[in-house]
Amino acid sequence: MVNFKQIKAIVFDAYGTLFDISSLDARLKYHFSDQSAPIANIWRQKQLEYTWLRTLMGKYITFSKITRDALIYACNSLNVQLNEDIVEDLMLRYQALNAFPEVASVLDGLRKKHHLAILSNAETKMLQSAVNHNNLDGVFNRIISVDVISKFKPVPSVYQLAVSGLEVDKEYIAFVSTNTWDVAGAKSFGFKTIWLNRSNATMEQLAVEPDMVITDLNALAGSNAMSPG
Amino acid sequence: MVNFKQIKAIVFDAYGTLFDISSLDARLKYHFSDQSAPIANIWRQKQLEYTWLRTLMGKYITFSKITRDALIYACNSLNVQLNEDIVEDLMLRYQALNAFPEVASVLDGLRKKHHLAILSNAETKMLQSAVNHNNLDGVFNRIISVDVISKFKPVPSVYQLAVSGLEVDKEYIAFVSTNTWDVAGAKSFGFKTIWLNRSNATMEQLAVEPDMVITDLNALAGSNAMSPG
Repeated sequence: MVNFKQIKAIVFDAYGTLFDISSLDARLKYHFSDQSAPIANIWRQKQLEYTWLRTLMGKYITFSKITRDALIYACNSLNVQLNEDIVEDLMLRYQALNAFPEVASVLDGLRKKHHLAILSNAETKMLQSAVNHNNLDGVFNRIISVDVISKFKPVPSVYQLAVSGLEVDKEYIAFVSTNTWDVAGAKSFGFKTIWLNRSNATMEQLAVEPDMVITDLNALAGSNAMSPG
Repeated sequence: MVNFKQIKAIVFDAYGTLFDISSLDARLKYHFSDQSAPIANIWRQKQLEYTWLRTLMGKYITFSKITRDALIYACNSLNVQLNEDIVEDLMLRYQALNAFPEVASVLDGLRKKHHLAILSNAETKMLQSAVNHNNLDGVFNRIISVDVISKFKPVPSVYQLAVSGLEVDKEYIAFVSTNTWDVAGAKSFGFKTIWLNRSNATMEQLAVEPDMVITDLNALAGSNAMSPG
């Protein structure tokens, strides 16, 4: 469990955690019809893989560029035609993903007791767009992008950015992410971790367990927090 | 293209390149019946992901242990029962994968003109088992494991192990792998790269292209090498 009386700051992952990537589904269907579901899956998988591989290779490029490259790979792998207009359209909409329904109200409650921050692979401009689009301006004390160190999650120095940015020691920070590997990275770094398991996923076998498991953010508003899963 | 007159050493990835992971398929079917194909896919995917994630997190464990963890994840994610006997059985068989049919004859030809080596994520003992099982002892000048630096591919220092181990400068080394991301890492490091595309896969969008694409190793025995794909 997480003792919230000892938590000074709550740090959130962005995509899949606060902002719903499936906001793009209708537009993917419009462009790719019955290929849209496999494209969405491969796109997301490759987007993650490219953040890991480029960090390992020492060949950082921005998350926007990686997102673009992953879309190209997804279409190539399925022999689906892709043109620059479609890429531009989807990248524009990626900057305006909807927040999950409970985000605004839960954060509004949490910010009365804790510092709040976003820590994301995306560059600041992209994050700011999502925040603006969802009228969440002023909710976060910090919006922190990995871009300043040219490395992606889960390298420890990425999580250190939240410690420096918020000026809060890591043991007083609770980190919330839907991504199992991100939870593992954050826990391995030393944060208290809350796995937001929105989709009944399976925890990674990376020798770390989250301190708390929830199925949506409402669990953080009340006292109905679940035990470690 | 690769000018083989300028190549002093040819370095091979192991699994999927020399040794056929699908050697396990019959045994997976025996243990898991109709769930064996999805288990094999998730197992392989998580095995790779855990090498990347653990390197990024700075939490190295051996490839054997990662292979074990990935199998556990695969079964967990599909709600398939797994016991220690099955794990032990599969791990034992993982040490005795069959080489692809053309490997022995092609390597026997190549070693008359070039130094040959294996550069693999697996630890030396596991590699040596596969080499012994396929009667390939004496074929390789070096069998190189990432284990000595506790990092996995595609970090540049892994590829540097082949340079140091063979005492050949990187521009005189050709690196052969079926794994697109491994080819990207090797090329980014500075090797000449040969993508062994056995299964009509799609090249990654990582801003590097292999110098040569082949569909099996026989292409290295003769002069029927294909242009970059």
